[in-house]
Amino acid sequence: MIYFDNSATTKPFPEVLETYVKVSEQYFANPSSIHRLGGEVERLINSARRQIAESIGVKSNEVVFTSGGTEANNLAIKGIAIEHQKRGRHLITTEIEHASCHATFKQLEKIGFEVTFLPVDAQGRISLTDLERSIKDETILVSIMHVNNELGTIQPIKEVGEMLKRHPKIFFHVDHIQGIGKVPLQFDQSGIDLCSFSSHKFHGPKGCGFLYVRSGVALSPLLTGGEQEFRKRAGTENVPGIIAMTKALRLTLLSMEERMNDMIDLKEFIKDQLSRLDPVQINTPERGSAPHILNFSIPGIKPEVLIHSLEEKDIFVSTKSACSSKSDAVSRVLEAVGYDFDRASSAIRVSFNFENTLSEGEIFVEALKEVVSNLQKVMRE
Amino acid sequence: MIYFDNSATTKPFPEVLETYVKVSEQYFANPSSIHRLGGEVERLINSARRQIAESIGVKSNEVVFTSGGTEANNLAIKGIAIEHQKRGRHLITTEIEHASCHATFKQLEKIGFEVTFLPVDAQGRISLTDLERSIKDETILVSIMHVNNELGTIQPIKEVGEMLKRHPKIFFHVDHIQGIGKVPLQFDQSGIDLCSFSSHKFHGPKGCGFLYVRSGVALSPLLTGGEQEFRKRAGTENVPGIIAMTKALRLTLLSMEERMNDMIDLKEFIKDQLSRLDPVQINTPERGSAPHILNFSIPGIKPEVLIHSLEEKDIFVSTKSACSSKSDAVSRVLEAVGYDFDRASSAIRVSFNFENTLSEGEIFVEALKEVVSNLQKVMRE
Ligand SMILES: Cc1ncc(COP(=O)(O)O)c(C=O)c1O
Ligand SMILES: Cc1ncc(COP(=O)(O)O)c(C=O)c1O
Repeated sequence: MIYFDNSATTKPFPEVLETYVKVSEQYFANPSSIHRLGGEVERLINSARRQIAESIGVKSNEVVFTSGGTEANNLAIKGIAIEHQKRGRHLITTEIEHASCHATFKQLEKIGFEVTFLPVDAQGRISLTDLERSIKDETILVSIMHVNNELGTIQPIKEVGEMLKRHPKIFFHVDHIQGIGKVPLQFDQSGIDLCSFSSHKFHGPKGCGFLYVRSGVALSPLLTGGEQEFRKRAGTENVPGIIAMTKALRLTLLSMEERMNDMIDLKEFIKDQLSRLDPVQINTPERGSAPHILNFSIPGIKPEVLIHSLEEKDIFVSTKSACSSKSDAVSRVLEAVGYDFDRASSAIRVSFNFENTLSEGEIFVEALKEVVSNLQKVMRE
Repeated sequence: MIYFDNSATTKPFPEVLETYVKVSEQYFANPSSIHRLGGEVERLINSARRQIAESIGVKSNEVVFTSGGTEANNLAIKGIAIEHQKRGRHLITTEIEHASCHATFKQLEKIGFEVTFLPVDAQGRISLTDLERSIKDETILVSIMHVNNELGTIQPIKEVGEMLKRHPKIFFHVDHIQGIGKVPLQFDQSGIDLCSFSSHKFHGPKGCGFLYVRSGVALSPLLTGGEQEFRKRAGTENVPGIIAMTKALRLTLLSMEERMNDMIDLKEFIKDQLSRLDPVQINTPERGSAPHILNFSIPGIKPEVLIHSLEEKDIFVSTKSACSSKSDAVSRVLEAVGYDFDRASSAIRVSFNFENTLSEGEIFVEALKEVVSNLQKVMRE
């Protein structure tokens, strides 16, 4: 099997599942219970929190565990909007955010917030000038993803953070869900106030994630109840999920150090090979894109058909974002980039993990050539 | 080890962890991916949804998976409040709900909702007359827990449901998190519109739960984004958690059938024995309480001290609700019941699972006697 759909989700590392089971068996108590078993679990969570904080370079009390990336994004955006609406009700984001941000802004629009959706250029990148121009007195939040999940385009987060330092009252949220373990991001002195992570994108368990919330940033909790997670997120902690996610993050950051070049080679190889094929149009920008995502279009061939042909050869790729892949609409992201209907509606995304190999890349390219040529024959007949 | 803190959380069944691992390994794809692997996972989730629906007697499309009980309660309450506020902004609940409901109502009060917190009698039970009297034209939601997590008191959910049929515009939410697998609840024709469940209370994985939402009930999603869970709860599904929870529910309902009498015997035995001890006051009502919870006070003895003395004998019990057990305040529930400070501030809760045995009960009673007599000696000295 060749699994090239790692932006949709990744396979959990075996060590991660071992940890999950061990913690579930041995540390099953409720960390809020005041007996010894509870205390042990509480210490385990705190040490996971410390490890995660260290590995991304933030403080321990700045890590808030959530049920995944969608919750982290919702908590950041709604949490800031609701908490700080008295200061202003204007929010800024981009046209190409993941649904978990995009739909959240749409929901906030309905209840009276004003949202600016910044356009992107042909590479899928916002302009700093656009952003700066859209800032008003009432702006309380800027939310921009680091790595786009369909194109792989990297946004100028560092520059945005620098610029926003001149607007200290505006909170800056970054969706780093596709970036973590692939494209480094600095937090210290970066101007970033909130940042979202999702465990299942880096070989951790599903149903787990976290939100970085810079010390001192107040936000209204989405889930109210017990006093877990610094009162920012109530609910009995997903203890084994948290500990297993922590392990997955450590292993992923290690792989990033050791195997980044292999991943880049794989992506470059496939891109090179595909560029030579006449009908293929590469959508992922040449510069400033993440190492694990390659998006291309083959106008005239329906991506669903291509995907199903490839899966017969045990190769798994995707079209657009998994969570909106069942709706017929053209990808919102590719439309924002300005592609015509043919190109936007025929996009294929391949996305890698650090264990994918160059020889998988070779097999994929050959399979794609064969499938495309067969499909073209059928269409000509 | 004698673990009598099952209302805080339960130990996952071994079979549940096996399922978790198997699903994580073999069905790791994103159920929203359109390739074969995604389709297989989607079918797996649908079949889990069907199984859960069948086992509680509702329809498959009425089960919405969440990250746990707190999220289920938040989604039910905020979801109805936000969606239906145009019809009215009055909500009714009780003084003894779990923090995940109580704090949610407090949060809604702050943004302009009016909330009636119904009092309870000396058994911790609301009165139907109180409830009916508190209904107004603006009432849109009644939210009442089935089994109280501190006292074990069962509320008259069936009667409330019947009565609310005369007020068809009011939604009825039940927190059944302590009730499931212990005290049966009927949904069909019951008047219940929403009902919350939490996996880790019935030997399932932490970080998983579900909300029953009767067909046709519209609610505003808390987590927006992808189109998962009938657009009521966005986010990549916690697939292994969902499948493992489904298994846990099946096994729990089986245990309930087979071992309910053992659990009742255990509770009755301990209650009997403790009643004979002079300083002990039983708080759990004689009639109409759940089989797995027994709450008692030993005025003059600090529960923390008792808990730590018992844990030296490898016996684990708790005070109030786990998630507020670290705050010094007296239990809100026992205050609502009307106990004086001495009784309310010295409560101990023991809570069972179906694997606890009568001999564990005997050991516990002996240990408690010893610990109490030692503590009393120390205090007299
Ligand atoms: C950029 C981005 N943001 C957010 C999410 C949502 O995270 P989760 O799947 O954990 O809900 C995803 C993936 O689904 C994503 O790729
Ligand atoms: C009655 C009741 N409701 C809600 C909850 C919260 O559920 P969870 O722990 O899954 O967040 C609990 C337990 O913590 C409970 O006992």
